[in-house]
Amino acid sequence: MDIQGFSLIGFGRGAAGGATWQATNPAAGEKLSPVFHSASSAELDGAARLASDAAPALAQSSGADRGKLLRAVASRLEGAAAELAARGNAETALPLARCNGEIARTVGQLRLFAGVAETGDWCDARIETAQPDRKPVPKPDHRSMFRAIGPVVVFGASNFPFAFSTAGGDTASALAAGNPVVVKAHPAHPGTAELVGRCVVDAVRETGFPEGTFSVLFDVGYEIGAALVGHPAIKAVGFTGSRKGGLTLMEIAAKRPEPIPVFAEMSSVNPVFVMPQALAARSATIAGGLLQSVTMGVGQFCTNPGLVVLEASPGATEFIARLADGMGAAAAEPMLTSGIQAAYARGVAERSAEPGVRVIARGTKGGPGCAETALFATDAATFLGRPALAEEIFGPATLVVECRDRAEMHAVARHLKGSLTATIQADSGDDGAELAARLAERAGRVLFGGYPTGVEVSQAMVHGGPFPATSDARTTSVGSRAIHRFARLICYQGFPDALLPPELQNSNPGGLFRLVDGQFSRGPVIP
Amino acid sequence: MDIQGFSLIGFGRGAAGGATWQATNPAAGEKLSPVFHSASSAELDGAARLASDAAPALAQSSGADRGKLLRAVASRLEGAAAELAARGNAETALPLARCNGEIARTVGQLRLFAGVAETGDWCDARIETAQPDRKPVPKPDHRSMFRAIGPVVVFGASNFPFAFSTAGGDTASALAAGNPVVVKAHPAHPGTAELVGRCVVDAVRETGFPEGTFSVLFDVGYEIGAALVGHPAIKAVGFTGSRKGGLTLMEIAAKRPEPIPVFAEMSSVNPVFVMPQALAARSATIAGGLLQSVTMGVGQFCTNPGLVVLEASPGATEFIARLADGMGAAAAEPMLTSGIQAAYARGVAERSAEPGVRVIARGTKGGPGCAETALFATDAATFLGRPALAEEIFGPATLVVECRDRAEMHAVARHLKGSLTATIQADSGDDGAELAARLAERAGRVLFGGYPTGVEVSQAMVHGGPFPATSDARTTSVGSRAIHRFARLICYQGFPDALLPPELQNSNPGGLFRLVDGQFSRGPVIP
Repeated sequence: MDIQGFSLIGFGRGAAGGATWQATNPAAGEKLSPVFHSASSAELDGAARLASDAAPALAQSSGADRGKLLRAVASRLEGAAAELAARGNAETALPLARCNGEIARTVGQLRLFAGVAETGDWCDARIETAQPDRKPVPKPDHRSMFRAIGPVVVFGASNFPFAFSTAGGDTASALAAGNPVVVKAHPAHPGTAELVGRCVVDAVRETGFPEGTFSVLFDVGYEIGAALVGHPAIKAVGFTGSRKGGLTLMEIAAKRPEPIPVFAEMSSVNPVFVMPQALAARSATIAGGLLQSVTMGVGQFCTNPGLVVLEASPGATEFIARLADGMGAAAAEPMLTSGIQAAYARGVAERSAEPGVRVIARGTKGGPGCAETALFATDAATFLGRPALAEEIFGPATLVVECRDRAEMHAVARHLKGSLTATIQADSGDDGAELAARLAERAGRVLFGGYPTGVEVSQAMVHGGPFPATSDARTTSVGSRAIHRFARLICYQGFPDALLPPELQNSNPGGLFRLVDGQFSRGPVIP
Repeated sequence: MDIQGFSLIGFGRGAAGGATWQATNPAAGEKLSPVFHSASSAELDGAARLASDAAPALAQSSGADRGKLLRAVASRLEGAAAELAARGNAETALPLARCNGEIARTVGQLRLFAGVAETGDWCDARIETAQPDRKPVPKPDHRSMFRAIGPVVVFGASNFPFAFSTAGGDTASALAAGNPVVVKAHPAHPGTAELVGRCVVDAVRETGFPEGTFSVLFDVGYEIGAALVGHPAIKAVGFTGSRKGGLTLMEIAAKRPEPIPVFAEMSSVNPVFVMPQALAARSATIAGGLLQSVTMGVGQFCTNPGLVVLEASPGATEFIARLADGMGAAAAEPMLTSGIQAAYARGVAERSAEPGVRVIARGTKGGPGCAETALFATDAATFLGRPALAEEIFGPATLVVECRDRAEMHAVARHLKGSLTATIQADSGDDGAELAARLAERAGRVLFGGYPTGVEVSQAMVHGGPFPATSDARTTSVGSRAIHRFARLICYQGFPDALLPPELQNSNPGGLFRLVDGQFSRGPVIP
């Protein structure tokens, strides 16, 4: 496919006129063709209106048809995988193998949501049949379910050009629920966004969904994204990125005449607590696992472990030395963008200057745009007294906090803000129950053993957590539960069967799992 | 019980020192004993801290124990019903029969949520078992569920002194999910709030839940409510009241260092569309039903039908005349508070002065504090051109909009903002499908026949809807679905069975309905 550099507005294209830019290859530092054109306000309005016009048809479409759409997107991504991976690699410096793996993950995600749409159980259909003779008042027939919420804006994420971008999890879940999607492409990988976006648009055409089901808007700046969130046609927002960016969108959404929900995944320190028995038994294994988790993808994962908490001991000292050896030997690698690299360098410099913080190791130096790993250490008292130490540094850095005893370890756990994940490394002799309970209060996912990077896409995954990890801990951005972000409740009272959505009709044509008069059933309702 | 006039702070009491006031009997206009004392900031902080301290124990309590708590509250309310109804009647002028009915509804609601907590299916437990041999990477065991979100503030509503106040739906659903509750009592019925609150506190003691599970704060002004929503210990807010009040709380919550969700139910016009065949066949019945729905409870229901939309015809003229006869003959009755009465009188005066709006009927005049019914009429063009006509007037008033044809009727439907309900009166000859689809886009509950007042408390009810009806259309304030307001997701990865919450343990001790490797099951997981 020939990349053209214009926004995808329904089945049409944007025009020249807005600010232009080119993507940069972060590894080589060179500009990539073609030139990209920022969307105009009129183009934004056009995409939003098309989405608004398409919304009723999408909301009323069958889950089977939405499944076809999502499967068609998946097939087209598979067909274009080589081209997508090459462009993704060029725009992000993420290795080809990683790009291919991420495309496979994205395809799997689309098919997971296709299955969710097709099965239909997600809509949580509930039926209460009428009791005309009930005293003191008759009970009316009423039936409720989740339905589409309306046009959704999805912001592409710099660190996942496929799985959290144009056809990523938010797009898949929004479409699965029956919502049009307008993507604000991330300016760091616009070519990838165009290629993926065209796969989606072609799938929309192929499966007969209306124009406006899907659009992609380009912008080198922030105006289009901000205006999209403020546009009256838009009913929800999905975002993965910086805390500053997420907070800005939350503020815009809250100040609208009609406030709308923003699902922002923002920042997370992902603490790893290593308990004494585990440390004694598996010091080298845990140090090796942590090293890999901190440095993989140049540390550019939202689940990157930025904090390691342990009890001071000779074994702990040895463990830190081991980790320092690994971190110190790690090669510098190019980060996604020069902005991210600059922020990382600034974060590392600031932390290095914090009183009471020791720089234990730095990785080998690299060229411009590269991140050198950083290992810091401090004691619990310092950590508890300096809030900046509990903040995320996005990149391959981590901070070891040494505690005097278990009580201080628990104090560190209670001190933490919301995180996407929290991990406990414990062996049978360690009593981790109290710590696990404290961490469950502060994270969306608690791991017993293992490392937080690597997020399974499944029916049970939760990639979310209390603020500031996300803007809404009631939901997740990974896994099938995410579909409820982009859905709202509707109840039909006293409706003739033929006017009900199929999900609520007596015959239960889709064989949904429904709660009928308090009992679960896949069967029909006998009126 | 002897009403004492001090806040209930855990198992203790507030003190004198804050601004004082007395409730007023709106029917008689006289002040009621005793004097009530506004809470101090320190008392507020005390209640919030107690709630925060109680939160972990509540979150980890069993559904069976929470069921006991809710059933104990219900029994105590039943035991005190006569006293509660008498005080409620004195403070609100709502008839004794209504107060008794509302207490029965509240008791039923508490038992519904007790059942939800006991059954436990609400937590939507999902289990994905490990696949250690999966390629390219092993699949970890991970299990997720909804859990408590933390301390919840519930604002008592003026128009439902029992069902939407101290031990109303929000309190019941928040406790059922395992959250402590701090109630900000409505200053118009503080005695009722104290009596109900003491039933809850006694039930907390009786069932062995920690102090801080429940508190009630009094305040004659707005400061305590605003400060509660801003308090760092508070994690969610339930509110039923004016749009201004709801928007204020949403703003406070959005501006916190840690933003929290606000579930505000604010204002709703509840349109009733009467289609031609229905009008021809059942003019008198529909006019009678509407009259009752508009005037019951002095129109002080959030589901009060404030808009009647029909196609102009001789039958429509006759229908309006019929409705006018009924509205004109309706007796003036005392409203809940002088403030509500003043707002109603102002709303009616403003609407009477709107160009193109005709005052068709006013009810009989009453004493001070009473509301005279008001029936207005206009044409669709006027309605579409004047946004104020689509706003709610809280009280026994309604506006008839005459449309030239079906297209204009649909235009009115599309023009409407979000409502809690929308009703279609249609007979078999009326094709209501298109209208039903449009209204489903704008309401939380769509009725085919019947009238919007009267909200069934059930597993399937939705009392919610798009903004400005509520702040969050993804949820409901009535019925068992409401429990998800006050819950968030948590995932446990790789956990030993004994450290998992019972809901996720292999043996499935509670017999929960769980999604295990994609299949629903009430059985155990065989590891």
